Amino acid sequence: MMLPIPSRLPIVQRTSTEGLIDLAWGHPDPALLPVEALRRASAAALDHYGSAALEYGSSAGPGPLLEWLIDGISALEDRTPRSDQIAITGGNSQALDQVLHLVTTPGDVVLVEAPTYHLALRILRSHHLTLMAIPTDRDGLQVDALRDTLHTLRQSGTPARALYTIPTYHNPTGSTLSDDRRQALVELAAAENLLILEDDVYRELAYDAPAPPSLWSIAPAGVVARMGSFSKSLAPGLRLGYLTADSDLVQRCAVNEVTGSGGGINHFTALVVAMVCTSGDFNAITAAFRAEYCARRNALIGALRASLPPDYTIQTPGGGFFVWVTLPEHVQAAALLDHAREQGMSFTPGSRFTLDGSGDNALRLAFSLYPATMLVEAARRLGDAVRSMA
Amino acid sequence: MMLPIPSRLPIVQRTSTEGLIDLAWGHPDPALLPVEALRRASAAALDHYGSAALEYGSSAGPGPLLEWLIDGISALEDRTPRSDQIAITGGNSQALDQVLHLVTTPGDVVLVEAPTYHLALRILRSHHLTLMAIPTDRDGLQVDALRDTLHTLRQSGTPARALYTIPTYHNPTGSTLSDDRRQALVELAAAENLLILEDDVYRELAYDAPAPPSLWSIAPAGVVARMGSFSKSLAPGLRLGYLTADSDLVQRCAVNEVTGSGGGINHFTALVVAMVCTSGDFNAITAAFRAEYCARRNALIGALRASLPPDYTIQTPGGGFFVWVTLPEHVQAAALLDHAREQGMSFTPGSRFTLDGSGDNALRLAFSLYPATMLVEAARRLGDAVRSMA
Repeated sequence: MMLPIPSRLPIVQRTSTEGLIDLAWGHPDPALLPVEALRRASAAALDHYGSAALEYGSSAGPGPLLEWLIDGISALEDRTPRSDQIAITGGNSQALDQVLHLVTTPGDVVLVEAPTYHLALRILRSHHLTLMAIPTDRDGLQVDALRDTLHTLRQSGTPARALYTIPTYHNPTGSTLSDDRRQALVELAAAENLLILEDDVYRELAYDAPAPPSLWSIAPAGVVARMGSFSKSLAPGLRLGYLTADSDLVQRCAVNEVTGSGGGINHFTALVVAMVCTSGDFNAITAAFRAEYCARRNALIGALRASLPPDYTIQTPGGGFFVWVTLPEHVQAAALLDHAREQGMSFTPGSRFTLDGSGDNALRLAFSLYPATMLVEAARRLGDAVRSMA
Repeated sequence: MMLPIPSRLPIVQRTSTEGLIDLAWGHPDPALLPVEALRRASAAALDHYGSAALEYGSSAGPGPLLEWLIDGISALEDRTPRSDQIAITGGNSQALDQVLHLVTTPGDVVLVEAPTYHLALRILRSHHLTLMAIPTDRDGLQVDALRDTLHTLRQSGTPARALYTIPTYHNPTGSTLSDDRRQALVELAAAENLLILEDDVYRELAYDAPAPPSLWSIAPAGVVARMGSFSKSLAPGLRLGYLTADSDLVQRCAVNEVTGSGGGINHFTALVVAMVCTSGDFNAITAAFRAEYCARRNALIGALRASLPPDYTIQTPGGGFFVWVTLPEHVQAAALLDHAREQGMSFTPGSRFTLDGSGDNALRLAFSLYPATMLVEAARRLGDAVRSMA
C-alpha cells in the first residue's frame, strides 16, 4: 500500500478562483482525461516491453509509436512520412522552441498570424526574432497579404525565414484555412523559400467533418515542419508530440548532443502512449472527446446567441477548443473583462493574441474545461456583463 | 488484450554485437531495471492523483516529487533547498544543455576536467564555448591547477564563466573529489565568481561509504548548480532529474516560455516517480543496485588484477559505473582496442574523454551492463589482447 506524503507545492499548472467560470483556460476538462486507459497502457507497456521501456530510448522515439504514427498519417493524410521524416517531441511548445533554435538566428524575420496563440508568441519572442503579423479572416491566413509582405521583405533585402501558423482549428479564432488557401500557401512558401511551422495540435478534435489535410501533407518536400501532439488527443501532462518534416530537420531535432547522451525524449511515456494507440484506445478516446467537445461547442454557441446582442459576432469553429467573438466597434474587450469578472466569468481579450496589443475588439472563449451547463451559465453571465456596460 | 504491432524501428538506444562483451556502454543492466516497481507506481499515480497526473503540470515539477526530494536532500546532505531552489529536469543531458543556454554566451570560457564525460563535451561544444581542461588525479579535480588557470584567465581579461565537474564517482575515472578539495573548490569558485555545474548523477550508487556531500550542499549560495538524476538511481528511460541551485537560475530553468505554454517537464512520469519514491520502493531499489553493482565492481577489479600485467594501473571507484585503467607509457588504448575487439571485448579509449584527443594511455571499462561472470570473461579477453600486442 502506497502512502504518498501530502502535497503542499502545486501539482498542476491550472489554478481556479471560487465562483469564477474562467473560459480563459484552453485546457482539456480533467474529468474527460483518459485515466483508466493510461493506467491500462502503463501496465501493458511494462508487461510487453519490460526493461526496454526503462532503458535509454532510441533518439527519434521508440519504433512502435513512430510506426503507429506513420501508418495513421498515411491512412488519414494520404502521405506517408519516411521513418527519417518523423520524430517524437516533448510536445508542441518544446518542438517549436527546438525548431526555432535550429532554423533561425536572432534578427531573422518570422511571420505570425494576427491573431495567433499568445503563448507561442512568447516562445517566438525568446528567440530574438523580428516578428511581423499577417492578417487572418474567417478562412484563416490571408495568403494574398502574405504574398505582398513576402515580396516587400524580399525587395528590402530581409526575406522572411519562416511562418508560424495554426491552419486547422485555430487558436484563438477557431478558423480553418480553406482548401484553396492551403494549396496557395504551400505553393507560395515553396516559391519564396519560406519554412512553414505548422502547429497542428487540434487535428483530432474535428466536430463537423474530418480535418482538412495538413499543410505538410500537401506541400513539396522541405516546405513544412508540422508539429502534432498528444496533448489534446490524449492528455497534456504526457508532454508528447511528433514532428513531420524533411529528414534533415527531423534528424537535427532527434539526433543531437542531448539525445546522443540521454536518449529519446520521454521514452517511457512514449511507449505507454504507443500502447494506448495500438490497443485501439486512442481511437475510442478521441471519438469520445469529439462527441463531448462538440456538444460543448454547440451549447456555448447556442447560449452566446441567446445572451449576446446581435452586433456581437460569434464565430463557430469546426474543431478545437475556442470560440472567437468579435465585439461592436465601440466595445473594448479589456473593459468588458472587468464587468465579466464582476459577473463571475472570465475570458481572454483579443489583444493578448497580437504582436502589438491591437485586436482588443474581440475575445476568446474556451469551451474545453467546463461541462455544457457551466458554459451556458458563463454565456449568461457574459450577456449580463455586456448589459452592465451600457 | 493488447496486441501491439511488431516493431521494426529501434526501441532503445543501445545496440549489441554478437559475441562482443562491450564495456564501452555505461548503461544500467536492463535486467536490473525496476519494471515491477514502475508498474505498481504507474497504477498508483493514476489511482491517487487521477486526472492531475495527466493535466498540464506545475512548471517546476509536481509538488509531491519536489517535496520528497527536498526532504531527502535535507536528511542526506544537511542542507535544505527552499522550494524555489529546486526544479524537476528532463535528465542531466537536458539540464546541462538548458543551464548552459541560460548562463553562457558563445565564446565564454568554460572549464572541464581532463578527462571528463565525453558526451557532455558534445553538449558543451554545441554552445560554441571556449573550453579549457583542468587536470585531475586520483583525488579528482586538481584545485591548485584550477586556481592557477582562473588567475591567468582573469589577468588576460577572459575570466572563466563556469566549470563542469563530476566530483562524485567520476565518469570516466571513477574518482571522487576529496573532502579538502571540495571545500577548497567551492571557496575558490565563490572568490572567483565561477559557477560550478555539478554533474551528480552517480550519488546514489555508493559502494564503500555514503557519498560525500555535494558541492551544492557545502557552497555559498549561487556558486553551484547541482544536476541530480533518476537515470542511474531508477531508470534512464524515465528522462527525469532535478536541479538544485540559487532561486534565480532554478526559476529561469523552470518558469520560462516553454513551460509557460506546455507546463512542467515530463509531468506524468514525474508523478509516477513520486510514487516510487514515497512508497519506499526507491530506497529498496537503490539498495539493490548498490549491492549488485558493488559485486560487479569487485568482480571486474579482481579479474583485471589477475589478467593484466602489473604495469597496468587499475583505479578502484568508490561508486558509479566505471573502472579507469592507465596503461604503460608505450601502450596506446586505440591500438589495444583493435586487439581487444579481436578477442571479443571492447572499451572506450581515454582519448574520447579529452578536449584535444590526448589521454590515449588510459581506458574506461563500464561494469554496469553485464553480470559478474561476463565481466570476468571480458577481463580475461582484455588480458589476452594485451598479450597479443606484445
